[in-house]
Amino acid sequence: MSSDSRPLFGKAALLGIGLIGSSLAYAMRRAGLAAHIAGFAPRAETLESARKLGFADTLHDTLAPTVRDADLVVLATPLGAFGELARAMAPHLKAGAILSDVGSVKMAVIRDVAPFVPDGVHFIPAHPIAGTEQSGPEAGFAELFDGRWCILTPLPHAHVKSVEKLRSFWQRCGSHVELMDAKHHDLVLAITSHVPHLIAYNIVGTAADLETVTQSEVIKYSAGGFRDFTRIAASDPVMWRDVFLNNREAVLEMLGRFNEDLSSLQRAIRWGDGEMLLNLFTRTRAIRRSIIDAGQDIGEPNFGRSRPKR
Amino acid sequence: MSSDSRPLFGKAALLGIGLIGSSLAYAMRRAGLAAHIAGFAPRAETLESARKLGFADTLHDTLAPTVRDADLVVLATPLGAFGELARAMAPHLKAGAILSDVGSVKMAVIRDVAPFVPDGVHFIPAHPIAGTEQSGPEAGFAELFDGRWCILTPLPHAHVKSVEKLRSFWQRCGSHVELMDAKHHDLVLAITSHVPHLIAYNIVGTAADLETVTQSEVIKYSAGGFRDFTRIAASDPVMWRDVFLNNREAVLEMLGRFNEDLSSLQRAIRWGDGEMLLNLFTRTRAIRRSIIDAGQDIGEPNFGRSRPKR
Repeated sequence: MSSDSRPLFGKAALLGIGLIGSSLAYAMRRAGLAAHIAGFAPRAETLESARKLGFADTLHDTLAPTVRDADLVVLATPLGAFGELARAMAPHLKAGAILSDVGSVKMAVIRDVAPFVPDGVHFIPAHPIAGTEQSGPEAGFAELFDGRWCILTPLPHAHVKSVEKLRSFWQRCGSHVELMDAKHHDLVLAITSHVPHLIAYNIVGTAADLETVTQSEVIKYSAGGFRDFTRIAASDPVMWRDVFLNNREAVLEMLGRFNEDLSSLQRAIRWGDGEMLLNLFTRTRAIRRSIIDAGQDIGEPNFGRSRPKR
Repeated sequence: MSSDSRPLFGKAALLGIGLIGSSLAYAMRRAGLAAHIAGFAPRAETLESARKLGFADTLHDTLAPTVRDADLVVLATPLGAFGELARAMAPHLKAGAILSDVGSVKMAVIRDVAPFVPDGVHFIPAHPIAGTEQSGPEAGFAELFDGRWCILTPLPHAHVKSVEKLRSFWQRCGSHVELMDAKHHDLVLAITSHVPHLIAYNIVGTAADLETVTQSEVIKYSAGGFRDFTRIAASDPVMWRDVFLNNREAVLEMLGRFNEDLSSLQRAIRWGDGEMLLNLFTRTRAIRRSIIDAGQDIGEPNFGRSRPKR
């Protein structure tokens, strides 16, 4: 976090105030990044929760008053809604505004949003690599982005000063910032996020559908490893449906690699190839160590769930 | 935990003093379950660590003095070594002793150990569903088994009083205890533990071998989900090799189901079947809730890794 505390923006508009949108509001407040935070949500319950929590200065169920005069507009709904939101708010955007988002797929966001961006509005797609399995405005907190990476995927002729301003914004929200090509982003996230979610959802589904093992047994004995997967498989269903529908090509490519490797592990088990198994299991241990050293996970056993008292 | 504090056993012998063996020693000490704890390990470094930590009364690099006069003997090495250990220690076992283990597969343990068990020694296989990704005597702690399940898989004509004694032992180590048929145990663990470990090892291997995404990118952006898998994939390589070599049939069966389901998810992504995806993603969320309600995981977001300060 920078120690600079001048507000970067007059008004910031958050379209979507769930886990990410509300966390962004808290992080902006913490760092004093906007003089006014406006939040938009279509559902009355969401707006009511947000009103009680108090993280926004104004709350709206229509787009025009949310984005009017905003210097920063951030799309933070499930990404399947971005195109329609962009189309509907375009006439109300202020000249010189930065339009960004937090979607987990970047090629599809560019495809859906770019056609509606008016001249003079600076569209800079972004993706903070942060989240929890919870959703909704109650799930948000200011520290969500601390120490995590935020990837910006500006288009080739993006407005350089706006890109730098958005970089500074995310840094002051606590993040490290990296610039990347959108297509490459989608490939990287397919392996670091999308396929992991897919196989977590999948194994939880498989376990629930067995006839030979009861659901109650799966739950009781989940501490053997399964429970870790259920956390990821508890993530927001609509958000993740939209991710898979919109990063199809990269997900299928990475899934193909995963399947190839799994077939060869399956074969090693069938034929009793202990050396092949030991080899892989030894290599993977080192990667965990690198992730802890890079500050992207804590080193305590079991994610600190079981804390030795010694 | 029971409030009863009479020692259950005079001497208890732990063959293997890694994460599980050392944790068992601490848990026994905490509850006063044995008058004397003897530890065995073949490697001098392991013995030296254990000596410094002080969780055992005596430490040995040979079997005979470890198990001599022991009322409880627990096999706690990787399970590929159990057969040879059983053969070698059999002549030194005390009549009336309970011989148990902590192996993650039960049919193979019975196959390997039962033939060597002398008349008058009560062989009762057991499996505490607890652990962390760390290994070695330094990784152990008394609370490891608290609130977790321990499954006993006694043979059909097992000595009932000894089974009850072992049940009481594990309860006083902090666990819930369940009795189960060994074959069924192996099927349950295949889906709740073994296949989850296999796919975690697999995706970490896949990610490390890509040419299009660098290892450094995988590490930096791992907070999108991948990092969760690396914890499991950092588990002890030898232990897990032995699990897969010894629970082949059940693992391949469950892996077959996993693969079938994954193919159908893959197809849904390819053809844009959002309804099918949303359906699964909604069902899996409920299972997470049941696991938390059953006390088998904590409910804090991100396993409590990111703790909101509000």
